[in-house]
Amino acid sequence: MVNYDYPRRERLGMPEAVLCAGKDSAALNGILSELSDRTDHPVLFTRLEPLQFDRLEPALSRALDFDPLSGTAILHGRLPPRQGTVAVVTAGTADLRVATEAVRTLHFMGVEHSLFPDIGVAGLWRLLDRVEQIAAHDVVIVVAGMDAALASVVGGLMSNCVIGVPTSVGYGVAQGGTTALHAMLSSCGQGILVTNIDNGFGAAFAAHRINRPQD
Amino acid sequence: MVNYDYPRRERLGMPEAVLCAGKDSAALNGILSELSDRTDHPVLFTRLEPLQFDRLEPALSRALDFDPLSGTAILHGRLPPRQGTVAVVTAGTADLRVATEAVRTLHFMGVEHSLFPDIGVAGLWRLLDRVEQIAAHDVVIVVAGMDAALASVVGGLMSNCVIGVPTSVGYGVAQGGTTALHAMLSSCGQGILVTNIDNGFGAAFAAHRINRPQD
Amino acid sequence: MVNYDYPRRERLGMPEAVLCAGKDSAALNGILSELSDRTDHPVLFTRLEPLQFDRLEPALSRALDFDPLSGTAILHGRLPPRQGTVAVVTAGTADLRVATEAVRTLHFMGVEHSLFPDIGVAGLWRLLDRVEQIAAHDVVIVVAGMDAALASVVGGLMSNCVIGVPTSVGYGVAQGGTTALHAMLSSCGQGILVTNIDNGFGAAFAAHRINRPQD
Amino acid sequence: MVNYDYPRRERLGMPEAVLCAGKDSAALNGILSELSDRTDHPVLFTRLEPLQFDRLEPALSRALDFDPLSGTAILHGRLPPRQGTVAVVTAGTADLRVATEAVRTLHFMGVEHSLFPDIGVAGLWRLLDRVEQIAAHDVVIVVAGMDAALASVVGGLMSNCVIGVPTSVGYGVAQGGTTALHAMLSSCGQGILVTNIDNGFGAAFAAHRINRPQD
Amino acid sequence: MVNYDYPRRERLGMPEAVLCAGKDSAALNGILSELSDRTDHPVLFTRLEPLQFDRLEPALSRALDFDPLSGTAILHGRLPPRQGTVAVVTAGTADLRVATEAVRTLHFMGVEHSLFPDIGVAGLWRLLDRVEQIAAHDVVIVVAGMDAALASVVGGLMSNCVIGVPTSVGYGVAQGGTTALHAMLSSCGQGILVTNIDNGFGAAFAAHRINRPQD
Amino acid sequence: MVNYDYPRRERLGMPEAVLCAGKDSAALNGILSELSDRTDHPVLFTRLEPLQFDRLEPALSRALDFDPLSGTAILHGRLPPRQGTVAVVTAGTADLRVATEAVRTLHFMGVEHSLFPDIGVAGLWRLLDRVEQIAAHDVVIVVAGMDAALASVVGGLMSNCVIGVPTSVGYGVAQGGTTALHAMLSSCGQGILVTNIDNGFGAAFAAHRINRPQD
Amino acid sequence: MVNYDYPRRERLGMPEAVLCAGKDSAALNGILSELSDRTDHPVLFTRLEPLQFDRLEPALSRALDFDPLSGTAILHGRLPPRQGTVAVVTAGTADLRVATEAVRTLHFMGVEHSLFPDIGVAGLWRLLDRVEQIAAHDVVIVVAGMDAALASVVGGLMSNCVIGVPTSVGYGVAQGGTTALHAMLSSCGQGILVTNIDNGFGAAFAAHRINRPQD
Amino acid sequence: MVNYDYPRRERLGMPEAVLCAGKDSAALNGILSELSDRTDHPVLFTRLEPLQFDRLEPALSRALDFDPLSGTAILHGRLPPRQGTVAVVTAGTADLRVATEAVRTLHFMGVEHSLFPDIGVAGLWRLLDRVEQIAAHDVVIVVAGMDAALASVVGGLMSNCVIGVPTSVGYGVAQGGTTALHAMLSSCGQGILVTNIDNGFGAAFAAHRINRPQD
Repeated sequence: MVNYDYPRRERLGMPEAVLCAGKDSAALNGILSELSDRTDHPVLFTRLEPLQFDRLEPALSRALDFDPLSGTAILHGRLPPRQGTVAVVTAGTADLRVATEAVRTLHFMGVEHSLFPDIGVAGLWRLLDRVEQIAAHDVVIVVAGMDAALASVVGGLMSNCVIGVPTSVGYGVAQGGTTALHAMLSSCGQGILVTNIDNGFGAAFAAHRINRPQD
Repeated sequence: MVNYDYPRRERLGMPEAVLCAGKDSAALNGILSELSDRTDHPVLFTRLEPLQFDRLEPALSRALDFDPLSGTAILHGRLPPRQGTVAVVTAGTADLRVATEAVRTLHFMGVEHSLFPDIGVAGLWRLLDRVEQIAAHDVVIVVAGMDAALASVVGGLMSNCVIGVPTSVGYGVAQGGTTALHAMLSSCGQGILVTNIDNGFGAAFAAHRINRPQD
Repeated sequence: MVNYDYPRRERLGMPEAVLCAGKDSAALNGILSELSDRTDHPVLFTRLEPLQFDRLEPALSRALDFDPLSGTAILHGRLPPRQGTVAVVTAGTADLRVATEAVRTLHFMGVEHSLFPDIGVAGLWRLLDRVEQIAAHDVVIVVAGMDAALASVVGGLMSNCVIGVPTSVGYGVAQGGTTALHAMLSSCGQGILVTNIDNGFGAAFAAHRINRPQD
Repeated sequence: MVNYDYPRRERLGMPEAVLCAGKDSAALNGILSELSDRTDHPVLFTRLEPLQFDRLEPALSRALDFDPLSGTAILHGRLPPRQGTVAVVTAGTADLRVATEAVRTLHFMGVEHSLFPDIGVAGLWRLLDRVEQIAAHDVVIVVAGMDAALASVVGGLMSNCVIGVPTSVGYGVAQGGTTALHAMLSSCGQGILVTNIDNGFGAAFAAHRINRPQD
Repeated sequence: MVNYDYPRRERLGMPEAVLCAGKDSAALNGILSELSDRTDHPVLFTRLEPLQFDRLEPALSRALDFDPLSGTAILHGRLPPRQGTVAVVTAGTADLRVATEAVRTLHFMGVEHSLFPDIGVAGLWRLLDRVEQIAAHDVVIVVAGMDAALASVVGGLMSNCVIGVPTSVGYGVAQGGTTALHAMLSSCGQGILVTNIDNGFGAAFAAHRINRPQD
Repeated sequence: MVNYDYPRRERLGMPEAVLCAGKDSAALNGILSELSDRTDHPVLFTRLEPLQFDRLEPALSRALDFDPLSGTAILHGRLPPRQGTVAVVTAGTADLRVATEAVRTLHFMGVEHSLFPDIGVAGLWRLLDRVEQIAAHDVVIVVAGMDAALASVVGGLMSNCVIGVPTSVGYGVAQGGTTALHAMLSSCGQGILVTNIDNGFGAAFAAHRINRPQD
Repeated sequence: MVNYDYPRRERLGMPEAVLCAGKDSAALNGILSELSDRTDHPVLFTRLEPLQFDRLEPALSRALDFDPLSGTAILHGRLPPRQGTVAVVTAGTADLRVATEAVRTLHFMGVEHSLFPDIGVAGLWRLLDRVEQIAAHDVVIVVAGMDAALASVVGGLMSNCVIGVPTSVGYGVAQGGTTALHAMLSSCGQGILVTNIDNGFGAAFAAHRINRPQD
Repeated sequence: MVNYDYPRRERLGMPEAVLCAGKDSAALNGILSELSDRTDHPVLFTRLEPLQFDRLEPALSRALDFDPLSGTAILHGRLPPRQGTVAVVTAGTADLRVATEAVRTLHFMGVEHSLFPDIGVAGLWRLLDRVEQIAAHDVVIVVAGMDAALASVVGGLMSNCVIGVPTSVGYGVAQGGTTALHAMLSSCGQGILVTNIDNGFGAAFAAHRINRPQD
């Protein structure tokens, strides 16, 4: 029932990642079986809940480097290091789960990165003190929920490529991240790009596309 | 067909304002007739389009002090001056229409006020240069569309009462002001209060409630 | 991973509150550790579920004054008393959880307040009998779900600053508080200000902004 | 292209009404032709814009009793008088267009009715002064936009059958009447029934169903 | 914390019902305590989950006549019989939970009624065979989810007062009853009235308003 | 700027149709120029407003067989006749615009078809009288707005392939056809397929896919 | 409480299926009792959760052929084989649950079918390699969540009848399948038909309508 | 009323662009006056409608290089050429308006670019024939409305940075571009970044951020 896209690594420079959400144990074990002998083919698993991880066949899950906070697992090691640096910035500590998904994906892809947590604009000095440090990276990923105002302020302060990752942090009209998403897309900070809600993986993958070797 | 609420001025300290949107010439002329002889009873008209104004009976409209940008008209003069000061801040020049509705309402109510236009966070220095001036007012009204990030940043920088007025400025997912509204309601800047979209009148009226004489 | 905004107390007159929703035990224990020795720095925790509270390290949670109904906890005591009085009004008994969040925040901030529960407009006499008592406060916080009609009626009866807090009480098209929110924002009672759904804390913080000492 | 439902009058006690919205002149003239010789068959036309009326063939439109405010036209006279009385109540003068559609439909059906305009709850005395008069009718139709709080208050004050007609009056989150609709459906005033937005005709028709002769 | 509206029975002919959803054990026990000695004052409780019922103080819950399917409980017996008959019709068997809430409310109010379950239009003969039986009642309550087409067909076949109760039965774009609600409000069957989603209680209460004794 | 997909006729048995909505005169004239000499390649234009048609270059538009009601134009004649028959059914006369788009597309494709207008379920006999006639076709296209109950009733009465086309006919919660769309998708009549709102062309194209020659 | 529609098999060529979602054990056992002796009447149960299955009376459930992945159960065997072939195509492995509902329904109806899993367009070669195989079937059911791009690409590559089944696979703005649904309905691939979200059963039933014997 | 952000060019490498939507003639003339003497400061105006352009003061508008299709105007010439190349790809010809906004912005910024119009996936060969040409650029901007499937397919075929610009092209559930936006954000093609609906300018600005000189 699985048609794993092996040629993707050659086409996109990154192997097909496996989104585990919505897959039951039978499906996940089937995919792991398929991949377990391909030790030359590193694979990233995302949105793997601890409960899902615990239900995998031990013989298969043993090979996984699993991180419960981000819900990521790495099979057969990381990709070789590549050029480019990425800053991952979060508005609050509740955004760390999503930010860590981005960080782990960058780690898997061999990309150098730094994390700047909890520097939301309600205490603006926290950002202003770090502007130079952040701007020293090739790409800046801003992870923020609620009003996501951090993305606009960052975008107005530096010329870097800014990727906004709206998070589902917040309640009421935060609407599971929809308000953060729409605020980032409507940002007065010009030229900010956006991913789906909580998609730390997608932001890191996009950074990989941006930093890929130019021929 | 009109039951004008004369006692409201005594109850709320402010006479009933007349929202002109959705009223045809017959209805508006009827209200003006009703009110035109009560010269001791000042009245504010809001959302009066220039086209609506032009179609009023000249004998009635002559008595109106009409401002086309804000769509407001004043009949029988202003209310007596009262205590309290208000700063009206806008993110962009396109927010001026709504901001001017607030300004004209404050003017009608006899409230001292200042306007700080076009200081959105995409050019953060524009706000940072004016923080002290703005904070010197009792109430700060922030008028902003799109991502409305200005409200959060203002709320984090000063202890004043901050009233956010989301505007319908923007396109696409700005959704006619819904994103600005939701971002202000979800603001990381704690204790920010919000009005309906484009409701400059309501923000000014609320400032009047806040600054009313305490017995 | 925490950048607690200590200077906020000086900027806003109120220390940074900690929103516990969405934070796991590791994050909450980390924040408590950071704050536990700063005994001169009172802190309010909001949206702390009993289950979250039970999972904190006992050595840390022991110092908290925890109230399960409102989900609030107070560390290192209250702020010194300050001027201004607040009435908290609810439409039904199901709104008490949110109203109590406001009450506890007022208590933490040292603000005098009274609670008027269960006086929704379906039995209008319950409100009419208390109008004078309620109007004697500087600020009136109206906590209501479903159609939130109470906010409009209160706003029409008294000149006080009225802050509406829509609640998620109701079912079907009440839509988790969206209808109450929109009804309050569209209120025919002029000059009513609104917070996010279920945001009792925000309403109390706003009352603090309104009643802050004017220089 | 028309299959006029002549037997409906016998089935429902009311002939099929013709909704003119979305029909071009050819369609409307076709229907009028079909009906013009059936002088024993009174018909009500709704949502007929003045512009549509002006474009009808004069030979056909001459037979219509047209009212531009409500957009209704009556062909071949009214139905015979029937039992039951209806009060039509509006929150504001901008709700009159919809209320008049209800009034004209009641007129066509031969039902006795009274109109109570502009008694919204922002000036509560306007309603309290008329409670007995309104309660003397068999059915009460409440026409209100924005927050529609009037329906809840009326429903809590009297035991009559209350039909709420939400109107598209308002702006921003009033959302073309959706907020009024949802507030009426979520009303704390128990047992209130609701029609589609701006559907004055439907409310009157429902009153006809309620007051129909019981065998 | 409770202000039970005792005079409502006199005002509306029906005592205040207690909506249990969202109330914890403390709140429910408090209300029961308040009411338990008023044996001359029958009360209906709605949306009382079996789990909530089991957690009540036995000394208090013993007095309740509890029905788990509808989630209703009756305290101190039924109201005296009154005039008028009601038919309750459902589209499918999954609508029975909501229909039973209506049936129990009618039972509590002393209203004669019949239930016609599972006669949705996918098998049209099931309805056509019962048209006369159903039409013999004063009021017809149609309980239907998904597309709610049954309400339109019933409304077109008989002149009775038709009250539509949309249910949350269905999945995907049925959207928890929103599609059924909107379809009923947009019904081509003219003069159909509607309640909130799953509000069987409200439909029965409305029938009570319709059938109340006319002076 | 045009890459007309000539091979589509071979791939799909139907040439690429040109959706004119959103194209200005320059774009439309460009496409017509490209196609005007290919007299062996019949093309259908859809959503061509009369105003757009009038602004085409006369030398180009002269070759078009234009129908203003449906907004369709045919260039270089019809496709050769093919097997299969289609019934197009409408709930009301206001649905005719969309139904005619389907009819014109069937005409262009050489498919035999019949139109059954204005047989909505509010007058159920209109449908019941025609069940056998309609069921005699291979495919039944049901065009309906508002509550779209006709699709469910048709689907329950006959075993034919039923394609629902929701229309934007209606107001208020009909929401421009969204309610009709959702009602058709949630239909209790099992196995009904649906197109986008107002997409008469798509329904006819789908009928073409269904009736294509089987090898 | 059950009015099983036995004549449906004769009307539609397929017996009434039982949707188990939202039905409790009492209701399901009641239906099974009703049907268990009619051994000549095969019945399909859909959306039967394993938990629901386990709670059925063993004497009744023993007769069911239950498949937990698809949540389907078959009573009294399959229908006799019929003409026509169907391809079921999925974008990802997470779509298999819905695809299997379609497969099991086709199996119950006696329709020949093939499954092509996990051939989404992110690895386009997986589809391009199978175009001929897929196109050899009379009907193609495309099961896809997230952006549902597979439906458009399939529709553009082959002339078959294409039925899109959007799935709730995805997160954030995938919105439980709404984005997949809307993308399929707006598809640039002309003439694609769509079912409700996750409605594998409906797609299979529609294929049955399409392939029914023509007289 | 204007606070033009002159330092933005130094901060972001690109001068503040002027969004003309929602600004009246007075506002636009004011901005032009402010900027007209700064001949060393090139400025881009976006969303300038021909009607707005015609109403500018001729003395001021004369200096503008205006393009009506894209609604862009350039004052004081282009920026100096910079590194990096961009491909702009469109699904249909109706997407050209938005694509041209991107092209004009790239032109203003001195960025080399190519346009690939009308290569949507309904005729997949149009894209497959150009994959190599498109992949030769540093950044690929995909402009697509309706189902936006083109973005996913492009993202799956090449490793370039892919920026999706959803357009408001389409009708019904295309919902003014919301479906295209959500489909791009939910894309199965991993690592695709997205802008607001119709925001060709933003995509070009983002490409400028990506291609900026690295120190």
